[in-house]
Amino acid sequence: MTVFERHPCGRAMLSVVGILAGVISAHAADGKPALEIVKQGGYSYGGKVIGDPARSSLHCNHGYVEYQIPKDPRKIPILMWHSASTLTWEQTFDGREGFQSKFLRRGYPVYVIDGPWHGRADWGCEEYAYKPEIGRDQTSVNSWRLGKWTPPEKPKYYPGVQFPTESEEAWDQLFRGRYLEFEPNVQLDTDETAKLIDKLGPTTVFTHSGSGIRGFVIRLKSEKVAGVVAFEPVNFVWPEGDVPPTAAPADVTVPLKTFQELTKVPLLIMYGDNLNEVPLWANAFARAKTFIDKVNKHRSQEVSNIRAEVIHLPERGIRGNTHFPMADMNSDEIESIVATYLTDNGLGEK
Amino acid sequence: MTVFERHPCGRAMLSVVGILAGVISAHAADGKPALEIVKQGGYSYGGKVIGDPARSSLHCNHGYVEYQIPKDPRKIPILMWHSASTLTWEQTFDGREGFQSKFLRRGYPVYVIDGPWHGRADWGCEEYAYKPEIGRDQTSVNSWRLGKWTPPEKPKYYPGVQFPTESEEAWDQLFRGRYLEFEPNVQLDTDETAKLIDKLGPTTVFTHSGSGIRGFVIRLKSEKVAGVVAFEPVNFVWPEGDVPPTAAPADVTVPLKTFQELTKVPLLIMYGDNLNEVPLWANAFARAKTFIDKVNKHRSQEVSNIRAEVIHLPERGIRGNTHFPMADMNSDEIESIVATYLTDNGLGEK
Repeated sequence: MTVFERHPCGRAMLSVVGILAGVISAHAADGKPALEIVKQGGYSYGGKVIGDPARSSLHCNHGYVEYQIPKDPRKIPILMWHSASTLTWEQTFDGREGFQSKFLRRGYPVYVIDGPWHGRADWGCEEYAYKPEIGRDQTSVNSWRLGKWTPPEKPKYYPGVQFPTESEEAWDQLFRGRYLEFEPNVQLDTDETAKLIDKLGPTTVFTHSGSGIRGFVIRLKSEKVAGVVAFEPVNFVWPEGDVPPTAAPADVTVPLKTFQELTKVPLLIMYGDNLNEVPLWANAFARAKTFIDKVNKHRSQEVSNIRAEVIHLPERGIRGNTHFPMADMNSDEIESIVATYLTDNGLGEK
Repeated sequence: MTVFERHPCGRAMLSVVGILAGVISAHAADGKPALEIVKQGGYSYGGKVIGDPARSSLHCNHGYVEYQIPKDPRKIPILMWHSASTLTWEQTFDGREGFQSKFLRRGYPVYVIDGPWHGRADWGCEEYAYKPEIGRDQTSVNSWRLGKWTPPEKPKYYPGVQFPTESEEAWDQLFRGRYLEFEPNVQLDTDETAKLIDKLGPTTVFTHSGSGIRGFVIRLKSEKVAGVVAFEPVNFVWPEGDVPPTAAPADVTVPLKTFQELTKVPLLIMYGDNLNEVPLWANAFARAKTFIDKVNKHRSQEVSNIRAEVIHLPERGIRGNTHFPMADMNSDEIESIVATYLTDNGLGEK
């Protein structure tokens, strides 16, 4: 169901006092000012009812959202859409606060979702099976671009990789930070989540990896999507008549007029380091650039001030980022780039 | 996997403006002072590694926790353990804030978990299947004690039921507020969650329904469980040699010496109204009283100041509570009873 795997080298590594120990054992602050939250909660959104509601039925195919509204909020909230776990938004692998808290501190209301069938919304309308796959741990060091690992050799991490390779606890969090994914459910996930965004009003959507295509497709279903920030997306949307030869099977093709909806909002795509070490990512990055080119090419005159761009972090001198820029050791730096993008592009108004 | 079902009568009901509409559409406060959170995040806890970690393996069987630490926290945090969804702790069915936020306001650090295999921790070490069961909606009105419903008749709600029966949105939240449960995994869930509590230090455990037995069993596995508040538990722990004839198949029997661990901490069990309308609940309530009697009977002298008790809300004049007292319309009143219990029993120290 996913292109990623994991590697349990935490067990094979030096036993080091986990950086996370402090987070797990203490109910203590870390010196930052308190977050002021005026409202928070969780609820199901969207979904379907199958069967006969008057006699025998089931509510299913909804998503689940947790939200927090900070004091004096900005106008446009951020919806964070994970690929495999909310962990990636909630906390970094070295135990610091995640983008959820970071952007709350910056005044954005934050909505973290589990899309239909995922996590707290696993009550789907169709059956599925889970089967633990021994070995999924192993290739993650490669596919998540922490380094090269060919068992039974020891892993060779990329120089300056932005992951605390000495922390057994961080490895444990990395390998456990996922749950069942349903990659093919792009249309279902975006249909239901568009209903949420329609209710929220203008919203910036943050995606990661497998949810990347969802962040693009949902703009075609809800005009309330005010902007998209995609961390390391894998798949893209193309306009009919202008599909590149590099298009992937899981990409989505739509009529040009529909595609043009994507040109009406700011789009930021970001990739980390060492892309050329893994064909999947070299490929995705190349297609991301093609995608952004086509978005800019097909933009109509009346929205010519809108920006769509790809940031390749190493080109800005930022090295060592893995597949999880928002959860890497330099997440403060990544946050700053994204926050500037939001305010520069009309997504940060008070 | 569970004794509960759901009913989609929301679709068959009058179309009423959902009470939740305000929550869903606005990023606005509801007039309460801001919650001051000094730290928050989410991470995986416990778990296992299967296979050969050096060659081919999988990290699995962990739980997932989200935590929030308020400013000037009390010493003993609360761990909230759901039966079928974190929703029941995060929000009420009429869209007000849930016990998570309420107890944060009272100064308790709050840890909301998905136990192993559940929700955000669905990456188990064994396979399982999900199959949507049309009809699970239907009997919930009965088993959750909102009223009597025998399709195709219309539902007859209990007089004064603490649920907004006129709100289509509330029904929708009720029926969607659950995900896959794994009732038989009591030992697995408590083994792994005991590891979390051992790290947190003294912790009060709140449980609901199916997680009730887990809240009792986990005190036998971690001395750090400082108290237990169980909303409508279904199963209980018995001491060998003193098992009542009413014991249920899913109850747990342990040696007397082990059972006595349960006598060392405050235990509060709470049930709502209309128990006699549903044999399951009449039965559970009777066994809860027997359980508390045995806890008090087998308590050793040196902890004779500890209190274990059952509160049947109607006996206090509080009527209409469903299977979800913490999420019912009178949740403020329920909160107040529980908060007083905590401070009266040494669980609320600053």
